[in-house]
Amino acid sequence: MKTIKHAIQDYYAEDLAHCYGCGKNNELGHGFRTGWNGDETLTLYKPQPEHTAIPGFVYGGLLASLIDCHGTGSASLALHRKNGHEPEDGAEPPRFVTAKLEVQYLKPTPQHVELRATGQVEEVHPKKFNVHTEVYAGEELVAKGLVVAAVMPEGFGA
Amino acid sequence: MKTIKHAIQDYYAEDLAHCYGCGKNNELGHGFRTGWNGDETLTLYKPQPEHTAIPGFVYGGLLASLIDCHGTGSASLALHRKNGHEPEDGAEPPRFVTAKLEVQYLKPTPQHVELRATGQVEEVHPKKFNVHTEVYAGEELVAKGLVVAAVMPEGFGA
Repeated sequence: MKTIKHAIQDYYAEDLAHCYGCGKNNELGHGFRTGWNGDETLTLYKPQPEHTAIPGFVYGGLLASLIDCHGTGSASLALHRKNGHEPEDGAEPPRFVTAKLEVQYLKPTPQHVELRATGQVEEVHPKKFNVHTEVYAGEELVAKGLVVAAVMPEGFGA
Repeated sequence: MKTIKHAIQDYYAEDLAHCYGCGKNNELGHGFRTGWNGDETLTLYKPQPEHTAIPGFVYGGLLASLIDCHGTGSASLALHRKNGHEPEDGAEPPRFVTAKLEVQYLKPTPQHVELRATGQVEEVHPKKFNVHTEVYAGEELVAKGLVVAAVMPEGFGA
């Protein structure tokens, strides 16, 4: 199985790395990891047995979560590169939040198959990116997603 | 705390009740439960401590999951009522799948607060419903959602 070598989530600041979807400091979370694959971004994930919609098929909420974190991670990769950095150079990457999430469910998603989310990042504003995602189960395109990702404001939530 | 008395998910057919979001037969799942509240639908949920985005705030993927299952549950309630049934009369309700999910994240969602998803169901076709959802954390509107829900096809996924 291919793995993501330099996932952006591995380099998020320690106090911003508790995300249930993709935070390395969340032991109970999904642990989504997103890296570059050429000019596209890539997240790989094997759903757990409990992530069921009906027996044999993956829960749509898990696909939404995958697309969400893949989206903010992809936006972070893109802005980091624009700023002259790559994940492995040790600089702290920008952290994004999701303003909007859209998921189209195209086909029932079989369980026990690795999911592959591929992303293309479009800058729409210096602090706002659209991430267009396709999710494949094996060779089959099962979902499409759009994440509108915005740079996390200073003092987020304060 | 208010609870949902006659959640539609309690009456889904046993072999369609394993959903990670809302299936009563999924011990590891969220257990979302959706019922009528007047002419609106209602799902209540208290996020678990691990459902974090950044410390103190709820993970957006959990909100997407809540909106997803609240949407299919609301569509099931609406079609069931149209067919002359209420959840507690023992008839098996129709089961829906999500064709499309949209979530707008309006504000950071504080943790340790019960979430309240309220839904309005719009029939767009005899087998297709739009469910418009608002999610409140306490009195604060934190997210808006749209689910396009379609009656689960016979032999789903076959």
